Amino acid sequence: MSVLIVGSVARDEVQVPWSSKTHAVLGGSATYAALAARLWGPASIVAVVGSDFPKSYRKLFDKKRIDVQGLMEAPGRTFYWKGRYNEDLQPKTLRLDLGVFSSFKPKLPPGLVRRTRVAFLGNIHPALQWEVFRQLKRPKLTACDSRDDWIRSDRKHFLALVKRMDILFLNDSEARLLTGDNNLVRSTRALARWGPKVAIIKKGEHGLLMATRQMFYALPAVPLHQVNDPTGAGDSFAGACLGYLNTQPRLTWDRLCRAVQYGSVVASMSIETYGPGRLIQATRGEIGRRMKRFRTLVGAIG
Amino acid sequence: MSVLIVGSVARDEVQVPWSSKTHAVLGGSATYAALAARLWGPASIVAVVGSDFPKSYRKLFDKKRIDVQGLMEAPGRTFYWKGRYNEDLQPKTLRLDLGVFSSFKPKLPPGLVRRTRVAFLGNIHPALQWEVFRQLKRPKLTACDSRDDWIRSDRKHFLALVKRMDILFLNDSEARLLTGDNNLVRSTRALARWGPKVAIIKKGEHGLLMATRQMFYALPAVPLHQVNDPTGAGDSFAGACLGYLNTQPRLTWDRLCRAVQYGSVVASMSIETYGPGRLIQATRGEIGRRMKRFRTLVGAIG
Repeated sequence: MSVLIVGSVARDEVQVPWSSKTHAVLGGSATYAALAARLWGPASIVAVVGSDFPKSYRKLFDKKRIDVQGLMEAPGRTFYWKGRYNEDLQPKTLRLDLGVFSSFKPKLPPGLVRRTRVAFLGNIHPALQWEVFRQLKRPKLTACDSRDDWIRSDRKHFLALVKRMDILFLNDSEARLLTGDNNLVRSTRALARWGPKVAIIKKGEHGLLMATRQMFYALPAVPLHQVNDPTGAGDSFAGACLGYLNTQPRLTWDRLCRAVQYGSVVASMSIETYGPGRLIQATRGEIGRRMKRFRTLVGAIG
Repeated sequence: MSVLIVGSVARDEVQVPWSSKTHAVLGGSATYAALAARLWGPASIVAVVGSDFPKSYRKLFDKKRIDVQGLMEAPGRTFYWKGRYNEDLQPKTLRLDLGVFSSFKPKLPPGLVRRTRVAFLGNIHPALQWEVFRQLKRPKLTACDSRDDWIRSDRKHFLALVKRMDILFLNDSEARLLTGDNNLVRSTRALARWGPKVAIIKKGEHGLLMATRQMFYALPAVPLHQVNDPTGAGDSFAGACLGYLNTQPRLTWDRLCRAVQYGSVVASMSIETYGPGRLIQATRGEIGRRMKRFRTLVGAIG
């Protein structure tokens, strides 16, 4: 049984102050999430690419045994993002071309629906997230993400969706925007009361906060000496969380804590290279080793 | 045997967006650190106040059994700070009057020197920190703090001092400034290599990083629903760390981890009220209870 991931598959061009090159890489939220989730078992992508999508990228998904039955190809250009990070790892969009993604209508092959146990409705328009959610046949676990644009433009739609989710992933600024509360502890707890079973707020280098109606957890990030490209950190994180949870019979608090620890470990690997290169190379063995070191570092039990 | 604290004792006026009042309170780095340290045992203050220093404030120190033999009174005005915090808890100085503090020459009574086991050279000019350090007779444990002004103006003096310290406390922006490195993990490790046995980098609501030459620790902050006045958080933190370490025979890694957990707990209480009101009321019993909840929350062992 598989983790189904809906989101973008993109061509990225990344610039950073510590490299003179522009790094042209495979990008997109679904790409990062699937490359992370596949480390624990079957993962499938639902997305759209244009006719310019490099064959080597498609081959890469095959090689990593990511199911691309739901990866449609439409005439036109693939989603393209060119961005530059500053010293503080804040991104600035230099160019954005939605391409075929602007008319994306996700349609799930019936075989894929049957195999889906966990579904991740990544960062796409809330109306599309709803469309995918309606096509699913009672998956065991559903999760969603969003971004500030959708929260601003489609708040009502998104909040209605959130109520139906098991897990809501947001970053700190999205959580503040959605709740209107600057205090992240209150925000995280508020989100957990608004509907999803679990609210997970990602704070980048500062780790994360997680809440259910009863429980609360705070975890620092995996300490890294060198971040090369923060792109996809949040999606790798979510993908790894859900990949791990797909191997677990039930959603317990301890399993959730362990899931976000795995998410942090995989995100920390993902940002070590430009694009998803490091994530592509990653193995469960080295994730296990880094997990062990991380858990010692934060004094984790259980 | 006592924790000796050198720093400022001040009159503060604090404004915040969530209160229409200007809160006139007892302030100063030495005040917060001593009120925190005294929770574990004897604490003494070395500082200077002016002739306008309220008798009620002096009585308060007596009542909390803080030794004020080293609290000199000089003709003139007490250090005065008026500041406003914004929604993101960033302070803006509205008025600053150093008063008698500008000609402060710390002189330690010999009895005080003999009783000092742990010394905290709080946020004062590095030349004054040196002066106090030279008057001390081999204390068991020394620690210092600083601020961006001193790091900019007296970098060399400060770095020489840091080499002689057991513990260096800095906040994130000070660490970045001192090391010239934006990556806080590298910064923290670099500082630990530069001389002090331990470098502790405080990140406010995001917790802390701690490093020795061999070890590394990351701890999130105690999650708080309401922060009323962040003034003194860092000093309460350091005071509690050192107060706890003063009760321990040796500086071990486990004890250091526990010390910064206590520091986080006490800092979280301190910022619940305007000025040091909450800190004044705090008891070891309630600190123990909050510590227990905090350690569950972050999954701590040991």
